[in-house]
Formats: sequence, structure tokens, C-alpha cells
Amino acid sequence: MPPHPVEEFTSSSSWAMIEDKFSPFAKETLANLVDFARNEIEPARRVWQAQLPDDPVKRWKTIIPITEELKEKAKKRGLWNLFLSKAHYPEHGVPLTNLEYAVMAEVLGRYGQYGSEALNCSAPDTGNMEVLARYGSPEQQKKWLIPLLNGEIRSAFSMTEKGVASSDATNIQTSIRRDGDSIVINGHKWWISGAGDPRCKLHIVMGRSDPDNKDKYLQQSIVLVPADHPGVKFIRPMQVYGYDDAPEGHGEIIYDNVRVPLSNLVLGWGRGFEIIQGRLGPGRIHHCMRSVGAAQYALDLMIQRVTDPKRKTFGKFLYEHGTIVSDIAKSRAEIESARLLVLSAAHQIDKFKAKGALKEIGIAKFVVPTMAAGVIDRAMQSYGAEGVSQDTPLARMAAGMRTLRFADGPDEVHIQQIGRRELKRAQHLHKLSAELAKKEAALFRAQRMARL
Amino acid sequence: MPPHPVEEFTSSSSWAMIEDKFSPFAKETLANLVDFARNEIEPARRVWQAQLPDDPVKRWKTIIPITEELKEKAKKRGLWNLFLSKAHYPEHGVPLTNLEYAVMAEVLGRYGQYGSEALNCSAPDTGNMEVLARYGSPEQQKKWLIPLLNGEIRSAFSMTEKGVASSDATNIQTSIRRDGDSIVINGHKWWISGAGDPRCKLHIVMGRSDPDNKDKYLQQSIVLVPADHPGVKFIRPMQVYGYDDAPEGHGEIIYDNVRVPLSNLVLGWGRGFEIIQGRLGPGRIHHCMRSVGAAQYALDLMIQRVTDPKRKTFGKFLYEHGTIVSDIAKSRAEIESARLLVLSAAHQIDKFKAKGALKEIGIAKFVVPTMAAGVIDRAMQSYGAEGVSQDTPLARMAAGMRTLRFADGPDEVHIQQIGRRELKRAQHLHKLSAELAKKEAALFRAQRMARL
Amino acid sequence: MPPHPVEEFTSSSSWAMIEDKFSPFAKETLANLVDFARNEIEPARRVWQAQLPDDPVKRWKTIIPITEELKEKAKKRGLWNLFLSKAHYPEHGVPLTNLEYAVMAEVLGRYGQYGSEALNCSAPDTGNMEVLARYGSPEQQKKWLIPLLNGEIRSAFSMTEKGVASSDATNIQTSIRRDGDSIVINGHKWWISGAGDPRCKLHIVMGRSDPDNKDKYLQQSIVLVPADHPGVKFIRPMQVYGYDDAPEGHGEIIYDNVRVPLSNLVLGWGRGFEIIQGRLGPGRIHHCMRSVGAAQYALDLMIQRVTDPKRKTFGKFLYEHGTIVSDIAKSRAEIESARLLVLSAAHQIDKFKAKGALKEIGIAKFVVPTMAAGVIDRAMQSYGAEGVSQDTPLARMAAGMRTLRFADGPDEVHIQQIGRRELKRAQHLHKLSAELAKKEAALFRAQRMARL
Amino acid sequence: MPPHPVEEFTSSSSWAMIEDKFSPFAKETLANLVDFARNEIEPARRVWQAQLPDDPVKRWKTIIPITEELKEKAKKRGLWNLFLSKAHYPEHGVPLTNLEYAVMAEVLGRYGQYGSEALNCSAPDTGNMEVLARYGSPEQQKKWLIPLLNGEIRSAFSMTEKGVASSDATNIQTSIRRDGDSIVINGHKWWISGAGDPRCKLHIVMGRSDPDNKDKYLQQSIVLVPADHPGVKFIRPMQVYGYDDAPEGHGEIIYDNVRVPLSNLVLGWGRGFEIIQGRLGPGRIHHCMRSVGAAQYALDLMIQRVTDPKRKTFGKFLYEHGTIVSDIAKSRAEIESARLLVLSAAHQIDKFKAKGALKEIGIAKFVVPTMAAGVIDRAMQSYGAEGVSQDTPLARMAAGMRTLRFADGPDEVHIQQIGRRELKRAQHLHKLSAELAKKEAALFRAQRMARL
Repeated sequence: MPPHPVEEFTSSSSWAMIEDKFSPFAKETLANLVDFARNEIEPARRVWQAQLPDDPVKRWKTIIPITEELKEKAKKRGLWNLFLSKAHYPEHGVPLTNLEYAVMAEVLGRYGQYGSEALNCSAPDTGNMEVLARYGSPEQQKKWLIPLLNGEIRSAFSMTEKGVASSDATNIQTSIRRDGDSIVINGHKWWISGAGDPRCKLHIVMGRSDPDNKDKYLQQSIVLVPADHPGVKFIRPMQVYGYDDAPEGHGEIIYDNVRVPLSNLVLGWGRGFEIIQGRLGPGRIHHCMRSVGAAQYALDLMIQRVTDPKRKTFGKFLYEHGTIVSDIAKSRAEIESARLLVLSAAHQIDKFKAKGALKEIGIAKFVVPTMAAGVIDRAMQSYGAEGVSQDTPLARMAAGMRTLRFADGPDEVHIQQIGRRELKRAQHLHKLSAELAKKEAALFRAQRMARL
Repeated sequence: MPPHPVEEFTSSSSWAMIEDKFSPFAKETLANLVDFARNEIEPARRVWQAQLPDDPVKRWKTIIPITEELKEKAKKRGLWNLFLSKAHYPEHGVPLTNLEYAVMAEVLGRYGQYGSEALNCSAPDTGNMEVLARYGSPEQQKKWLIPLLNGEIRSAFSMTEKGVASSDATNIQTSIRRDGDSIVINGHKWWISGAGDPRCKLHIVMGRSDPDNKDKYLQQSIVLVPADHPGVKFIRPMQVYGYDDAPEGHGEIIYDNVRVPLSNLVLGWGRGFEIIQGRLGPGRIHHCMRSVGAAQYALDLMIQRVTDPKRKTFGKFLYEHGTIVSDIAKSRAEIESARLLVLSAAHQIDKFKAKGALKEIGIAKFVVPTMAAGVIDRAMQSYGAEGVSQDTPLARMAAGMRTLRFADGPDEVHIQQIGRRELKRAQHLHKLSAELAKKEAALFRAQRMARL
Repeated sequence: MPPHPVEEFTSSSSWAMIEDKFSPFAKETLANLVDFARNEIEPARRVWQAQLPDDPVKRWKTIIPITEELKEKAKKRGLWNLFLSKAHYPEHGVPLTNLEYAVMAEVLGRYGQYGSEALNCSAPDTGNMEVLARYGSPEQQKKWLIPLLNGEIRSAFSMTEKGVASSDATNIQTSIRRDGDSIVINGHKWWISGAGDPRCKLHIVMGRSDPDNKDKYLQQSIVLVPADHPGVKFIRPMQVYGYDDAPEGHGEIIYDNVRVPLSNLVLGWGRGFEIIQGRLGPGRIHHCMRSVGAAQYALDLMIQRVTDPKRKTFGKFLYEHGTIVSDIAKSRAEIESARLLVLSAAHQIDKFKAKGALKEIGIAKFVVPTMAAGVIDRAMQSYGAEGVSQDTPLARMAAGMRTLRFADGPDEVHIQQIGRRELKRAQHLHKLSAELAKKEAALFRAQRMARL
Repeated sequence: MPPHPVEEFTSSSSWAMIEDKFSPFAKETLANLVDFARNEIEPARRVWQAQLPDDPVKRWKTIIPITEELKEKAKKRGLWNLFLSKAHYPEHGVPLTNLEYAVMAEVLGRYGQYGSEALNCSAPDTGNMEVLARYGSPEQQKKWLIPLLNGEIRSAFSMTEKGVASSDATNIQTSIRRDGDSIVINGHKWWISGAGDPRCKLHIVMGRSDPDNKDKYLQQSIVLVPADHPGVKFIRPMQVYGYDDAPEGHGEIIYDNVRVPLSNLVLGWGRGFEIIQGRLGPGRIHHCMRSVGAAQYALDLMIQRVTDPKRKTFGKFLYEHGTIVSDIAKSRAEIESARLLVLSAAHQIDKFKAKGALKEIGIAKFVVPTMAAGVIDRAMQSYGAEGVSQDTPLARMAAGMRTLRFADGPDEVHIQQIGRRELKRAQHLHKLSAELAKKEAALFRAQRMARL
């Protein structure tokens, strides 16, 4: 069998492990994607950068032409909405498993936001489409899901609040209350990704509708809010390090007596928690796989830099100095093991649903961004000052990776959960130890020996 | 499908990834092994310890009864020579792939040397049997291989030399020369594992037979030397962190005018290098997989300790203090990723032979022992002073892991090789960059923009 | 003796070690500085931020009012040019040792660039004033040094070049050549810090004046170039993780046939290397000590965050979760040891000049920024998304620390130098070993024992 | 001033920082010690090893001749009981501060137990002498302290118990009760260092005399028990890794109805806790400083190895491979910073007593052994298999360092204490923040700006 193009593209060792789990359609789609990435997405990187205005007002009002062109091309090639698995979304989905999409997400991870967007696979739209496909009413789907699936509009997920420890979602303060035939929303959110985009037409807003409910997981509801609705106030874009991530951005937003019809409620009163639980899961793995791709890309850049004859110092290539060869070896090993962790988690989801893969998802979640940050950091060091500047994508990738360490729950939460999950094995282990002690005693007797 | 017993036994997440690569025979053998491990090997741990005399002379002259009993039982169960893959050794081998054996080696890794020995799968015999099966003459096979395969005798591989940097095998000084119908061997070796065992009947000795050969990889030959031959002098046992590892031990040995017949030469004059190249490979993965098993075992011990109600301090379980939950989570993640690396390398060997898996083998080689040492160290810390004593296997495992970091080539050598192997991708990457620059320029033109 | 205010301010344990090395003047100045920092510099942090325009053009043309007010106040209090040690600069200097200034620099390190600028102690002006004070002609001093000492103008040091591995200064390509009574400069520089400031009136430019000189350390010269001279072209500001660091910035600059009088040459033809050697040294320690201050400030912020009752999650303070107490302890220990390293290096410079303190300077250089980056990173994690945003100084500090790892020579260069310096002890150690072997042999004889 | 011999001996940068804190007597004693170390202690290392019998019985009954000779020589040179500071023990002490002794302890740390013993400065005798000097009755002092001070006998401190989490001393189970004119002791201890030595004549035993006392810190008492008293049963020597540390060893001991006169009670009933609190403190720093010395010694060995021409591989010195130069640089930096931490803690004790130096002691306690273990590990790696064997002291040093991570309280306890101590600064910091907010608001008003 000739090597699949993805092997050379990602320089991965893991293809042998997963190849036989790929359908012919998935293999073909992956080859198609690799080709599209190399010939269309990659060359557009700097054009995209150049088409985003510097002006602090205009950059939030621009639809970047190259993105729209890439979207058209991708759609024609059938590289569209690949994240939406038919197994879970029979109506709108694509016949790909999570494992199969994971490898594709890795490829897209080399290009940051614009690469995923080209295939309509970028956050937060992906999760929002999943919410609407799973929980939306037919009317809601018609109005919001279809244009999202077509890449005609974009959307925001409005959950994180200012001044509130949002890793505990029960802390949420935004008020969602019924007032006659309307729902009235009041709250102060921030870090609402995508809300700055001129194409963003929908906020999916989480708030408290029943603050006195004894079950604190039934206090929340989720409501659809048109982005341009009266009372929706965009305060300012939040920065990540010095990046504003225009045009999507991360908005600080006030909902000031926003009034929408009752039909904008999703799923039902008090079911907000249930919805966000369903929204996460596979999406975390997508983040992780993209991070593996980013790390691999950083390593590729580093290899080019340290072998660049123009960069010789003291008569030697950079790679001949200090610990660079060793750094590269460690990066390769770390990427490989993180990749395997993510593939294993993706496959686990395919086999046992997200619920049956919590351990694997959690491990990937706290291992991968830190791994990728380390690899990117070594690459930056090999580029010197250029590595932190606007002339390479490295610093921006580093900032993104740093953010992933608390996006979607800080590392600490995942680490504690995995640790506590392991501790649940204690009872079983103590039981085995007790049995062992008996067998051991019997054996000492059989050998006619005094036990130690 | 009901869960395979190995899933619970190793608490591994990786079974889902590899299950479909296991033959029915392998699945059955693995289940058989898990049962044997739990009911026979594990309870024998302390009996074995008790049957080894303290006396500094007697401990080298003892055949430990429980080991021989375990060997008989294992043979009856068909758990014998599992390391020897029929694919490579059609005559003597067992129908198992490297991937399949890797999981079995992990199980055995929980028990140190005596566990592997019970199944006739312990180093250095495994590698020596491979040498004799692949390169031995019929006569040599009859005399040495058959008793080794039957577990009747044991053997040593005599390569490392005192005062010589042996990570570069061309440094070897031991002289092997023809003298009429005999071969005469003179040299000073040390760290000859297994040479202390009363059952050790064979030394496979590497030396220089043609020191003036221009090709320094043709200067060496390998000769079979009976362990009790005149001139074979056992000087002393080397210690590893205070352990003598009796009864096998690691001998310092002088070959003083040892004279053996010409028929004891293996494969031919000047072919020593060729033989040791073939000897390594899969064996490295066995070491690594056993190390994963050792790490998993240490984690199991740690979980028991930190949940032990007798170990409460200041009113809390140990796991409620400090960073223990986090340490456990990290250990779990590290074990999981190392396990996947080793499984991936084993599968790579099955698909592309050891030569086609050098990258994966090298990565496993420098990642796994350091990982396992870290996990074991955390477990030791949870046991306090007991963790470094003779009352838990942890310190001994730690010493063993430490040694693996230079056994079979120090980490540094593997790291450099992997790093340099990665650097070979530079040319390809520079070529892609050049192509990309052209596409990018074309795209800027198409967009009627000045390039950045 | 009552505690000195600096003890509480920095929460340092090291004051006891150095107190008796401080002169009464230094103690008084330090107390004065601590008071000024707390009551004037610290409250100005956000005002400064607010007075810097967002507009991408105006932010480079603004003299920030609060900075100028702080400068006036500092001058009145005698907190001015503290970096310039009278011991080395009798005419213009302040009677402070490097050790004494090191503690003051730590205090200033909490406030980033604007804090140091308030006392006229900010890079690159500090190094430039040292160059002019040590190597400038009377005329050069009158024209440039005096206004710099008065804080009336600012300056840039123009060395790093685009496309050139500048950690090896002999790679420099900018041409400096005599043409009659003029000097003509042509070159392409970048990362020229301070060049964006509207008050920047001087570039100190390094280039090659004698490229054919056999001694490659005599090929370079340094020339003074007025910032607004014809041919000095500001191309663009470089970014550090998305920050442009306006108004100083880090400019990309082309010198296009810039022509200045011969009297603008510093020290003499071919003496560029000699000058930059003298320019570094103490300055590196200032960077390091400011980094210690930044780390301490980050830890202070972290302590506030994790004890903030508004930040409780799941009913607990943040510090009651996971590994936060342990992280704080480690941060404290790391800050303390880094502080001692820097103080020790500063004292070494006082005793033995920079040349006699190369080891201590080098160690501080590669240890401290990495330490500080780690402490800041933990603090960021405790702030979640707010930690990477414009609402805390943490991300900006992190970006600054990252840059320090290659500013003024990448870590790798310092690490290699320290390592090679240590290896010089080999000869001495081998000699001692030989002597020891003799003594040991004699002792064995005296004990009438055979040697091991 | 000519360099002090200690500078070259320890290759330390820290002498400049502390020199002016040394009395002339201390400087002279230190020079004396350095000379003694180099000419007497160091050459005795292998003789000591050779004089310890291999025989598992005899090695516990041997008084090693070379140790006794070294003790005589040291006493004659006035290098005796240097650990006992006259400031605290006016009657028996030596006029040295903790800082001064710290540097001496570093010198001794190169030689393991026998080096300290040569100067009568070895644990656990040092702490025991402090207990007797501070809390012993005149009669107790006459009987036990004087012979200990003279180096005629040795002693053990009997606290740790089997099956009990002893990092919480209130868990102690050993019973100490009055029975008429006697005290009766029953208990099961282990890890009683020194108890195996044939010269050990005294156990200082901690137990519970008043288990029902409401104040759990008044339940314990301490009693002097002659080592050969009826009922004192030595069960077995505990091992550290595979070392038994003969002849001192770490005994498992049962006190079976041991009956001693009332006069053997130390200080008074219920004052056990008070005594052990006083016993610790400076001793912890001695451990740490010896660890710095051990690390320095390991680095010296590593430098010799990697520059040894006999160890060339592939035509290069070891130091020319991989990351060795970088490892050496890091080791140097880590040793230097740990050394400064310990010196700072020692000086803090001199200034503010152990109580006023808890933070500094705690930091040193958790930083230094881990640092030293890391440096030793790198040195071991450079020696390959020889590094873990009996032919270098490295593995034994590594085992000792590992043990220090829980001796005298596990790292975790110290880390938590330091972390919680830091958190106490929260209130002060919150108060400063509140003040700052006011000043900031005032400043915004003064600048006529809206606050951010």
C-alpha cells in the first residue's frame, strides 16, 4: 500500500496504528484535505494577515475576502462541516468518526482560526451548530442552524461572566426571566469569542432563570439572542496578550434588558446545564488535535530555522550549538505521545460516547496544550526576537496555547478530576491486596516457610 | 463484547486502540497470562525474597525453588517463550506479534526479573536465544539453544568492558584470536548480567578478532564460551545502588587465555557487529513495556497507600494533602502516553521490521524509563522511608529504571539519533517552503495586493 | 534596629545578608524609593495606560503626561540616575554600589518601563549614557549626554540586524565608511528599542567600518546619528506577542546613505567591539533584578487572587484547590534563590568589576528570566482569562520575560559559556585526583591493607 | 587579601557575600578544616570502605580503625564538635556561628557519614548532644553528654514508628509510663539511625506518657535508655535502596517492657514535644549544607569524567556530546543558588534564632535535597553503569539524598507550610490594594480623566 499523504504531511508515526480504522471515504477526504491545506490554505496565510486592516475600527467591520474564497473552494471540494459526525447528527452530519475527524483537525491546527473557518469547522460555531442540531426547535434550526451550516452567518456562545469564577458554572449571575410572552435578559459577559465579527448574527446566552431552585443544576436556561438586538451592547474587545484576535475577537458584552420572544428559549426552562454538558466533549478533542497540529507546525519551522545556512553563528549551523538537537528530539517525542493520547481519546468517544471517554478526554485536555506550548516555545527560542514578532505565527500560537490552559475549565480542574477518578480504583485494589495476602500466606505454608 | 481481563488488570485506556489487532490466540494467551500473574506470580513475590539467602556466598549458589515451580506451571499452561515470534523464528517461535507480546511484557513488568523468568522470557536469555536461533550452527543450537528454550540452563552476554566507553562498541578491547584449531580469548569484562547464576552455562563473548581491519565494523567476532571453562574467572559481583541482584547478578569477569574449539565461533569471523545489531531491536521494546508495567504497579501501590486509613495525618487521608491527587493524575497520564508510544513502536516493528521502526524504538527508549522512574519516585514519596526499604519493591524498581537509562546505550545517544533523524526532514521542508513562497506570491498578485 | 521598609515591601529574606553592605546614604535612598514607588509610581500605572492613545498613529507621537510629572517629582526627591555608579563615573555618578542599586532596580521592576523611566533609569538610555560617559568626546557629552542625564531626550542603541544571526556580533552587515569629512552609514536594523519615542533624538549605531581587517573584533565602529537625520527611515514597529510597546517601541529602521560629520565617531575607528563590551555587564544585572521584582509582584497579585472571597468556586477559596499552595511555596523559593544569585553577582561586580564576575552574571542571566516567567505563569493561571488580558499586567510581563531569554544573547550562549568555564576546572581536578591517588596508596600501605 | 582556601575548594561564588561575617577564628578553623579534608579525610575514603567487612554479622560489630585515627587527628587540630555553637551552649560550645559552621558542613558533605564522624559532627549524635546540653540534668550530662562530646560513645534518637504516619508526631504509639520508681517503655520503632553501631550506648526514646491529655502536644515524654538494657531488642537493619549503612545502620527495634529509673526522664513529664522542637532547626540546615557539598563533589566528579581522554566515544570527549556542557552549567547554577539559600537561612538563624528563620529553613529543606539529587543524577549518567555501582560514591549519595526528601518531615509538609505562611501576607496585600485604589482614583481625578 502506498503511504497515505497524511503520513508525510504530519511526519507522524501513528498512522500505522489507526489506518485500519479509517473508512475509504475518510481516507479519501483526508487526502483531499491535505491537498487543499497545502495548496490553498497555507499560501493564504499572509494574504489573510494583509487583508485585515490595522485600523482599530475597520478591523472589526471587515469580511476578509480570502476567507470567503477559501470557503467557496472548500465547499466545492466537499470539505465542509467535517466536524459534524453523521453518527450523532444523522440529518446534517458527515460520515466521519471522531477518530477520523481528529486527524483532519490536526491538519487544520497548523493554520489557526482562518484554516478551520475555511471548512466551516471553527469554534464557537461548531459547538453552536451541535447545540442547535441537537436541542433546537425546527423553527430555531431553520432560522439559525441552516445559515450556520451554510457558512452564511457566524455565532457566539455567551457564558463567561466578569468578576465571577466561571470554572464553576453555577456561579453564573446573568438573569433570564419570563415577562409575559417575552424573555428578558440582563447580564454582563466577557470573553465572548466571535462576537466582534460583522457576520456574527446570533448569541447563544446562558443565564439563571430559576435562582431559587434547590437543584443548582436546574437554575439555568439558554436563550437565543440576535446579535444586533436592542440592548445588546458591545463594550470592548478583550485582548489575549496584545492580540485582539480581530475580526472575531473576544467581546465584553452587556445585555441590558434584552427582550426576545419565548420561542427563543432552547430546549426548555432550567435545561441550560444539560445543554452545555452536551455541547462539550468531542469539541475538547478538536482543540487538542488542532494543538498537536500547531506543535508539529512549530517543529517544522524550527527545523527549517536551525538548518538555515544564513543563520550560522560562529561558523556553525544553529543545530550544531548547545541543546538544539536534543530539544528537537524531545519535541518529536512529545508531539508523538500527545498525538497518540488524542487519537486514543477520539477512538474512545467513538466506541463509548463522550461519557465513556471522560478519563481520556480529561488527560488529553491537560496534557496537550502544555506540550504544544513547550514545543512552540523551543521553536520561538530558535527564531530569537523574530519568534515573538508579527513575522512568524509562533508568538500568536503560544498565546493561544496559553489560553487553552484555562479555556473550557482550567488544567487544575481536569487534573483533580482525573486524580480523583483514579482514586476510585482504591477499593478494588485493597480487595485484591486482601486476596493476595491470603494466597501469599498459603504459599508460605506450602513452602513450609515462616512468612516474612 | 465483554471487557478483556487485561483492561481491568492494567487499568489501561489503550486496549480499544489495539484490540482488533489481536488474534484470538493472542487474546486467549493474554487472558491466560493475566490469570497466571494474579494467582501464581504475584503471590510468589515474598516467597522468592525469602528463599534467597542473605549469606554473601550462598546467595550465588542457590536455585530458588519457587522460580522452578512457577516455570513448571507456566510451561504446562503454554505460557512459555512468548517473546519468540514465529514470524521471525518459524522453527521455535510462538505465533504472537510484537504488539501482542508487548502487552504481555507489560503484565510481566510488574514482577521484576522473577516474573519474566517464570515464563522463560527474561533477559539476557531472550536476546541470546534470538542470537542462537538466527545465527547459531545446528550443532550450537542443539548444545545451547535447546536447553535454553527448555529453561534448563541460563546464559550471559559478555560485551561491556571495564575502563572503556562501551556505548561505542568499536572501543571493545577483548582479544579473540585463532590459534590452530582453537580460539583464544583474553579480556576484562564487567556488568555481565546473569553470569552469577549457578544455572548459567554459557557466555556469548564479543571481542576483537581483526583489530587492523580498515572497516571498524568488521573487526569484531562473537564466540560461545562455556561458563565453567578454564580461564573464565568471576572477579566480583557489581552492585546497583547497593543491590547485587543475586542470584543472576552482574559479574566482573576476566577471560584469561580461554581456549575453545573453532566450532564455537558464531556466524563467522568479523561478523560480531552484524550479530549484535540483530540482537537488539524488539528487545528494547520489551524493556520499555516492562517498564510501563512497573510504573503501573507503582501507581497501584501509591493509590493503596494514600487511601489507607491507617496512614491518616492531621486527621486526613494522605491523598487529601498537598499535591497527591495531582501527582496521581500526572502519573496516570504519563503511563498512558508512554504505553501508547511503546504499543505504537511494537506495531511499527510488526509492520516494517526493527529497521523501519528505529524512530519509534528510539523515542520509547529515552522516554519510558524516565517516565517510569518519575512515577515510581512519586509512589516512593507516598510511602516515606518504607518506600526506600526492603519492605516494598519500589526502591529496587527505581534502581532498575535508573540503570535502564544507560543500559543498551545511554539516553543521550538515542536522543541525538532521534534529533538528527528529524533534521533529515529539513531538505524536504525547505523545498516545500520554496514552493509555498511561489504560491503565496501568485496569490498576492491574484488579490492585487502588495506582498507583506 | 527597626526593619527597613524594603523588607516588608519585597517580603524578602535576603536583607539580613546584605544590610551591613549598605551605606547610610544607600539605606536612606532605598527607603525614599520605596515610599515613592508605593505612593507615586504604583498609583500611576493605570493613568499611564489611559494616557497612551489607542490610535495606531497618535500612540507614537504622544509624550505621556504622567511620566513627565513622575520624573519631576523623582528629580526633586533625589531619585535620579541611580544606576550610574560614582565609583565608575566620578563626574556624573551617584554614590551607590551595584549591590545597592540592584535592590532599587528590584523595586522598579514591579512597574515595567514607566517605573524605571520615572527615575531616568530605563533601558536603553542607561547603557547609552554609560557609553557616552565613558567613551564620548567632551563635545559628544555636551550635546547628548547632558540632555540624557537630565531626562530631556531619549536615545536608541542600533545594533540588531534583520536576517542576521546577531548573537554573533561579528555578523553585522551595516556599512560605516568614511567619505571625506563625513561618515556614511547604510544598513538595515530592527528591534531598535526606544526609536519610536517622539523624544528619541539619538541613535548610537554599530556597523562595519573595516570589513577586511584580519582581526574580526576590529572591524566595527560606532557612530552617533541624530534620530531625525536625513536618510534615517522608520519602517515599522516590531511587535512582541501583539504588543507594540508604544511609545518607545522596537523599530525596524533603514539607514539609507546617512551622512554625519567625522566628529560623530565614538572613541575611534574599529573600536566598536570594545565599546559594546563595556556597555554590557552591570546592565544585565539590572535586567535580572527588575525581573526578580516583576516575579515578586506577580506572586503578590496571585496571593490576592487566590484569597479573594469573590473568587470562590465550589464553596472554597481558590487556594484551597489543587496545587495552588504548593505553587505559591515554589514561587517564593524560586524568587528567593534568584534574588540571592543576582545580589551575589552585583556584589561580585562591586568587588571584582564586571570582568571578574562573568560567571555570576552569566548564571543570573540564564536563570532569572526563566524563573520569573514561571512565577508569572502561575499567577496568570490563577487569574484565568483575566490574566492574559489587558486588565492585569501579567501577560505583558510574561511577554517581556520571554523576550529577555534572547535579548542580550540567547540563554543558550550564556549556558554554554558557563558550562565551558566550569570545564576549565578539569585540569585542576585531575591534578588533585593524581595527588589523592598517591595519598590513598600511602594510607593503604600504612594500614597494611591491599588497595581495593 | 589573598583568596581563602575554601574558595578554590568549593569553587564557590558566595564567599564574597559572607567573608566579612566570618570571625578570624572561624576563617582560621575553616582553612584548617579544608586542609584536613583534603589531606586526611579524602584519602581515607576507600580505606574506610575496605575496613568494613562484607560479612552480614561482622559488619555490625566492627569499629572501623581509620575512623578512630581520623578522630584523634581532628581532635588534636581543634576540629572537634564544631557544630555546637557557644552562643547557644556556653559551657560546651565552640565560638562559631551557624553561618560559619554551615560552610564547614558543606566541606564535610563531600565525604558522607565518615567525614562528619571524624570531627564528632555526625547525626544523630549532634542533635542528641544538643538535647542533653540543653535539657539534660547534671547527672544525665555527666553520664551521657560528656562521653558523647569526647567521641567515646555514640547514640540513637528513637522516634519513628512502624505502621504509623510519623510526619505527624502526635501519632506516636510507644508507651512510656511510670511504675513506682521506674519508667516502663513498650513500643515498636524503626529507622533508628545509629542503633546498629557497636559504640552506640544510648537511645533517646520518645513515647506517649499521657495519652488522655487534652492538649495533644503534652502527651509525649522523652526517656534515656541504655542501648544494651534488658528488653531492648534489635530486630533487623532497614535498608535504603540496597544499602544497610553499616555499621551505624537504621534499626528496627522493639522496646519490650524496658524498665529504667525515674532519673532517666528528660526535662519532665509531658515535655517530649518541647524537646523535639528544640532539637530540630539548625540541624536541618546542616543536612542541607552537607547536601550542597555532596552536589559540588558530584559535579567535580562529573567534570573529571567528561574530560577523561580514556572515555572518548566516536572520537570526541564526552563533554563534546549532547547536552553535557549545558547540564554542567545548570548544575553549577543550581548548586550556587542552593548554597546561597542555605547560607541565608543559617545567617537568619544567627540573627533571629531558629524560630525567626522558619521560612528560610523550610525553603532550604525542600529545595536543597532535590537540587542535589538532580546534580548527582547528571553525574551518574556521565559515569554510566559505573555510576550506580560500588566503584563511585554517586549511587550511595543519590540514595541518601532521596531519603532526605522525607527524613525530618516529607517535602510536602515543608512546602505546605511555606505556602500557607506566604498566604498570611494576603491581608496586608488586600489592605495595600484598597489604599492603592483610593490613590489611583485621586490621580485620575487630578488628571481630569475618567478611570478605566
